Amino acid sequence: MSAAGTATRSRTVEWQDPVATAAAGAEMSGLDYLRATVAGELPRPPISVVMNMAPVEFEEGRVVFAGEPGEEHYNPIGVVHGGYAATILDTALGCAVHTTLPAGVAYTSLGLEVKYLRPLTRDTGRLLCEGTVVHPGRRQATAEARLIAEDTGKLLATGTSTLMIFGA
Amino acid sequence: MSAAGTATRSRTVEWQDPVATAAAGAEMSGLDYLRATVAGELPRPPISVVMNMAPVEFEEGRVVFAGEPGEEHYNPIGVVHGGYAATILDTALGCAVHTTLPAGVAYTSLGLEVKYLRPLTRDTGRLLCEGTVVHPGRRQATAEARLIAEDTGKLLATGTSTLMIFGA
Amino acid sequence: MSAAGTATRSRTVEWQDPVATAAAGAEMSGLDYLRATVAGELPRPPISVVMNMAPVEFEEGRVVFAGEPGEEHYNPIGVVHGGYAATILDTALGCAVHTTLPAGVAYTSLGLEVKYLRPLTRDTGRLLCEGTVVHPGRRQATAEARLIAEDTGKLLATGTSTLMIFGA
Amino acid sequence: MSAAGTATRSRTVEWQDPVATAAAGAEMSGLDYLRATVAGELPRPPISVVMNMAPVEFEEGRVVFAGEPGEEHYNPIGVVHGGYAATILDTALGCAVHTTLPAGVAYTSLGLEVKYLRPLTRDTGRLLCEGTVVHPGRRQATAEARLIAEDTGKLLATGTSTLMIFGA
Repeated sequence: MSAAGTATRSRTVEWQDPVATAAAGAEMSGLDYLRATVAGELPRPPISVVMNMAPVEFEEGRVVFAGEPGEEHYNPIGVVHGGYAATILDTALGCAVHTTLPAGVAYTSLGLEVKYLRPLTRDTGRLLCEGTVVHPGRRQATAEARLIAEDTGKLLATGTSTLMIFGA
Repeated sequence: MSAAGTATRSRTVEWQDPVATAAAGAEMSGLDYLRATVAGELPRPPISVVMNMAPVEFEEGRVVFAGEPGEEHYNPIGVVHGGYAATILDTALGCAVHTTLPAGVAYTSLGLEVKYLRPLTRDTGRLLCEGTVVHPGRRQATAEARLIAEDTGKLLATGTSTLMIFGA
Repeated sequence: MSAAGTATRSRTVEWQDPVATAAAGAEMSGLDYLRATVAGELPRPPISVVMNMAPVEFEEGRVVFAGEPGEEHYNPIGVVHGGYAATILDTALGCAVHTTLPAGVAYTSLGLEVKYLRPLTRDTGRLLCEGTVVHPGRRQATAEARLIAEDTGKLLATGTSTLMIFGA
Repeated sequence: MSAAGTATRSRTVEWQDPVATAAAGAEMSGLDYLRATVAGELPRPPISVVMNMAPVEFEEGRVVFAGEPGEEHYNPIGVVHGGYAATILDTALGCAVHTTLPAGVAYTSLGLEVKYLRPLTRDTGRLLCEGTVVHPGRRQATAEARLIAEDTGKLLATGTSTLMIFGA
């Protein structure tokens, strides 16, 4: 990829209507929704296509996403934009909490805190992002996540989140 | 857009080698780099294509980005992924600090804190994200940013960041 | 004070039963409770004695606290402990939200984020800490606060908070 | 204590000149400084007297502090002020990083993020606060901490911090 010089690069992303998928998912428990997405019974959420990420492990209170940032995620100062790490961390944090929720109980994130530890580049390769529930409260939950490079095991970023739970 | 049903949607993004652009930018002051990008003298960073965002105002210590999230940024629960707000906030925070730096001085973000106040949807329309430097230190700087919907003026999210300054 | 050498210093703090005071306060609006405390109709909360801080301005959605850290707040590395700034910021953040709440509506802080910008010492003198509501939501509110040195006007620390609202 | 009614309570705190102690500590490694304080060879930092807290375990990259909040730490709404948790978390976070630093290398905290999970009261009893280094960088380090009630093992609050390292 480093040989590409000044040529224009392009990438086409494809997705299905995410509102219809979400409506189907709202009637499932969080774990069942994740299972159905991984099994291909429901389409992937569009952001996971754009960010090239997908769940690889999940159980109650814990998920692991894999992701691979590309050149299309670069910022003006020549590395992958912090928004990439923020997005995969936010995903792992929210989904970790989602795995603890039965059908009919919803959540929303109130906030996200990210610590950037090492730069991500187009050569970093595949990332693993593990999210874990820390406090599974009835009205609020908190979670933490770590983003590592699969090849080297190096810690690239960490995140925490507070989420509000509805309808429990 | 609500009529689309189950049809597959797609979008193609195009960009130029971001490392070459960043190398050119590293020899400019932050303000000059922003000016050159807006003037089309340098290619846009790829993430700004993917996230459909661009600077609309900038001066020393302050920038405003506009952005428009689309269906391709949706998460599994049927709204725009929090990573979209995180990315545009991170951009405004970093660029606000960048506008204060002369050529030869670099920065990196140590962390990002986002507060999600209202959901973003494919109907929210154009967003404005203003980033302002709060503490322009020699070794560390802090900044704050607000994300609003242009139509309604409603505050959607806020962010803060701590950045490390190199070579000052 | 610099002449004091190895002599032992001491300070005695006095307070009234805070649970009784809080019970009285719970039947007032936030603004009325603050007014009653400032007027001396209700005792000061103990933490404000320990931290030598008190409200000096307040209106709906905004409060200013003054505080003066002393040697008794020092940490092991020879400056005022970060907990002092955290405490006065947390106070201004929570009270700013409290001023927006009628009697019978309670709040609790879900989190606090502090940015330390300059060290506080026993010579910094009086501090002013302004807290402002950013998002006055029905179920969650957010606020921001700034801590400055009164003498120099220098910004010492900033804070943000997310609070949950009950019984609205 | 509930029988005390309207009687005025008081507490006297005593400490030694913290600047002299810090100057002595600055010539030691972080671990040696902690050991000297615990052994009583150096005076306790004043804040640890005010907050009634002390280290109970420490090794490279990890510390545990015990603390016991009292009525004197109460806020206006009838529980222990969030500043208490913030202070002991900040202490564990900073000291965890300090244990990794040789003599002549200093640190300062750039920020603290606290999540409040359960209220602390005068009946909560002894707390344990464990701080652990997450990222031991050369110029920045990050740490995380958890605050639990010793009696029940319940998680009361969590914290994270980013610290700048000097002179490494």
